[in-house]
Amino acid sequence: MPPQTTSLSLAAVLQQRRDRLAELHPEPVVLWSGQAVSRNFPANTYPFRANSHFLYFAGLPLANAALHLEGGRLTLFMDETSAEAALWHGPSPSRDAIAADIGADAAYPYQDLDSYLGEAATLSAQTTAAERRKALVKAVVALRLHHDDYALDQIKRAAAVSVTAHKAGMVATPGATTEAQVRAAMEQVIMGQGMTCAYNSIVTVHGEVLHNEQYHHALAPGDLLLADVGAEAPSGWASDITRTWPVSGQFTAPQRDLYNLVLAAHDACIAAARPGIEYRDLHLLACRTLAAGLVDLGILRGDPDTLVERDVHALFFPHGVGHLLGLDVHDMEDLGDIAGYEPGRSRSDRFGLQFLRLDRPLAANMVVTIEPGFYQVPGILGPARQSGQYDNAINWDRLKAFDGVRGIRIENDVQINSTGCTVLTAILPTRADAVEDLVSGA
Amino acid sequence: MPPQTTSLSLAAVLQQRRDRLAELHPEPVVLWSGQAVSRNFPANTYPFRANSHFLYFAGLPLANAALHLEGGRLTLFMDETSAEAALWHGPSPSRDAIAADIGADAAYPYQDLDSYLGEAATLSAQTTAAERRKALVKAVVALRLHHDDYALDQIKRAAAVSVTAHKAGMVATPGATTEAQVRAAMEQVIMGQGMTCAYNSIVTVHGEVLHNEQYHHALAPGDLLLADVGAEAPSGWASDITRTWPVSGQFTAPQRDLYNLVLAAHDACIAAARPGIEYRDLHLLACRTLAAGLVDLGILRGDPDTLVERDVHALFFPHGVGHLLGLDVHDMEDLGDIAGYEPGRSRSDRFGLQFLRLDRPLAANMVVTIEPGFYQVPGILGPARQSGQYDNAINWDRLKAFDGVRGIRIENDVQINSTGCTVLTAILPTRADAVEDLVSGA
Repeated sequence: MPPQTTSLSLAAVLQQRRDRLAELHPEPVVLWSGQAVSRNFPANTYPFRANSHFLYFAGLPLANAALHLEGGRLTLFMDETSAEAALWHGPSPSRDAIAADIGADAAYPYQDLDSYLGEAATLSAQTTAAERRKALVKAVVALRLHHDDYALDQIKRAAAVSVTAHKAGMVATPGATTEAQVRAAMEQVIMGQGMTCAYNSIVTVHGEVLHNEQYHHALAPGDLLLADVGAEAPSGWASDITRTWPVSGQFTAPQRDLYNLVLAAHDACIAAARPGIEYRDLHLLACRTLAAGLVDLGILRGDPDTLVERDVHALFFPHGVGHLLGLDVHDMEDLGDIAGYEPGRSRSDRFGLQFLRLDRPLAANMVVTIEPGFYQVPGILGPARQSGQYDNAINWDRLKAFDGVRGIRIENDVQINSTGCTVLTAILPTRADAVEDLVSGA
Repeated sequence: MPPQTTSLSLAAVLQQRRDRLAELHPEPVVLWSGQAVSRNFPANTYPFRANSHFLYFAGLPLANAALHLEGGRLTLFMDETSAEAALWHGPSPSRDAIAADIGADAAYPYQDLDSYLGEAATLSAQTTAAERRKALVKAVVALRLHHDDYALDQIKRAAAVSVTAHKAGMVATPGATTEAQVRAAMEQVIMGQGMTCAYNSIVTVHGEVLHNEQYHHALAPGDLLLADVGAEAPSGWASDITRTWPVSGQFTAPQRDLYNLVLAAHDACIAAARPGIEYRDLHLLACRTLAAGLVDLGILRGDPDTLVERDVHALFFPHGVGHLLGLDVHDMEDLGDIAGYEPGRSRSDRFGLQFLRLDRPLAANMVVTIEPGFYQVPGILGPARQSGQYDNAINWDRLKAFDGVRGIRIENDVQINSTGCTVLTAILPTRADAVEDLVSGA
């Protein structure tokens, strides 16, 4: 999706956000940006990432800064760059210039914040009593759940770079011998566009390891490579894409069968995503689609609905179908399940539902991921087989024909619109033959 | 420098290190590895970097682990990977297997560490009284100042990857339009080799901003591009290289004059580096070489020695000529100046010496950087000119002829050997014409 520009200035967008906050939460609020974190010694820090709640209202990734919000007014607290810091780190805009960019009503040295703290609610359990904090969290979640045009534009920009990165990874695969080389080709695109990774990339021939952050495996011609890589714009807005492609440029027949099944689950969710639908129902739709397809392939036996009720599908798809996407790749996960779960709901104990990160009805301008998968995780399937309890549901002999498939996931970023949804990352192919063409350079 | 292998196993190397520690510090010691740090929400962490003192004695970048060292014995404290963690993060070696790899004498769950803490010295001011901590720091510094063969081999491996990265940056420059693209081409090499960056890269046409971690400037044909980029091996050992090259592939005459002057300062230090020489004297040698050259170019007036005594050179070279290199790119800088400064010495107040990070006599198997530079920092030269106090030493009119030179630095990693030194990064050209050839693909 080509980047779009919005008609509103950053300052006007931020004014709208805090006017909405003032409606939901008239009491004063203080939010901190945070500071750079040391990697191994004080001067050697990780790249600074500002707190997402701060970014939502400040727009700029300022370090060592704080905001005071009250009745739509914005007061910025940060120190001017010292002469010595300017000498080493270069000139930077003055506090007043930054305040003007973000439309702040006032701007003061950081230490002046102290006198504002007593009356303000914060998101820190250390400085704000539980009930007061809860009210602020509720207001912030209500705002951040539904993205404004500026946010959507930023997410689209990040998504466009992620798409290019995935194409670069596919193109680089025939010439690569390790996962690390493909990862490097993908992250080079993100870095070259002046963006960062929204999360630690997963680029692996062991897609069955769901959070695999190692890249040392060699690539073999029969392998599937799973790449879960997403760019984050300098403003902090994230994207999140997964594709799975054959190292050889050609899916084997069993790989293609399971790839097409995961794609069918993905496509079914996209077709169903619209305002009002429960995200949990999209998840269950993906589960039923997978179960039915696994029956068709002879891997599972029985009625798909019953298989899903028994969580048999979850042995091969043990995670949720996706999550909120925004300033965080799992948006607002710093607040636990408060953003992901509608008030009054909580995580299920069921194996097939416990990893679902989002359980709300969808609404216009929410952005979510849709990311079904199929995995053969030894730590799940080994005990399941040994237990004997799935012998009436799983044809273990037939499953052997699919040994070459350790992990497949297909993930896109989806904006709910007024009647359905828009796939923000649709320009990156999902069809098996189109993916093969990209890898093999056809 | 091609990677070399050492004859000793990791376990044998670590045994030697702790035997040496036991000689210097017979009392028990506890060192922690640290844990992954959150980026914006708990599950989204920065890539984990283990504490360098832990790495020195543990050899492996274990997270959430601790070591107890006493009389040459090593006890490892870490928890086994839980079944659930293994499910999501993949299988990992057992505690006993890790203990065997690093030659630990015993290995226990993390919580068992508690009973060892009372008697042990640590590097944490929170858990160890100042005098006791000081004794441990002294012993650790004494060990880590002089590298064993295993460490040198690891540094050489990192250096070899950094060399390749710099060549890739030069080659990518003609096709790049922004700093970010050149940075991406360089870091792609490091990532593709399974290494990480030892520090946040500096890749900029504004080399006069000494700690420039932004990459958004466009490249113009007349610009010099300064790249300070170094790889870190998975074991944690670092490298650190700077080169400065013309974006066009061709230095202008004033650029070449100043480049050759910085190179002359660099070469003079390399020629003089040997056991017994004071690192401060190498710094002053670089200063005098620069001052004499600036006199020859008509930029400075007067006797070079007198100019250095007046710190006139430091207006153009405001940092030290280098630093210790090891597990940290500024090795052991987490301990302040204790490693860098010989006991009894401390930072000078002089502008030309206050940023010197290392003030010790060099000795065999120390690794240091040599990195003289020439910069036109507006925040330094502006006030200097306005003050009038350098009018008898600086020909401001003549300086205008060198407007196109904002920042040049040339940096190599140097191992002190028994009679002189070995430049570990010598395979990457420094001569102006060789650099031009790499950039222009000649």
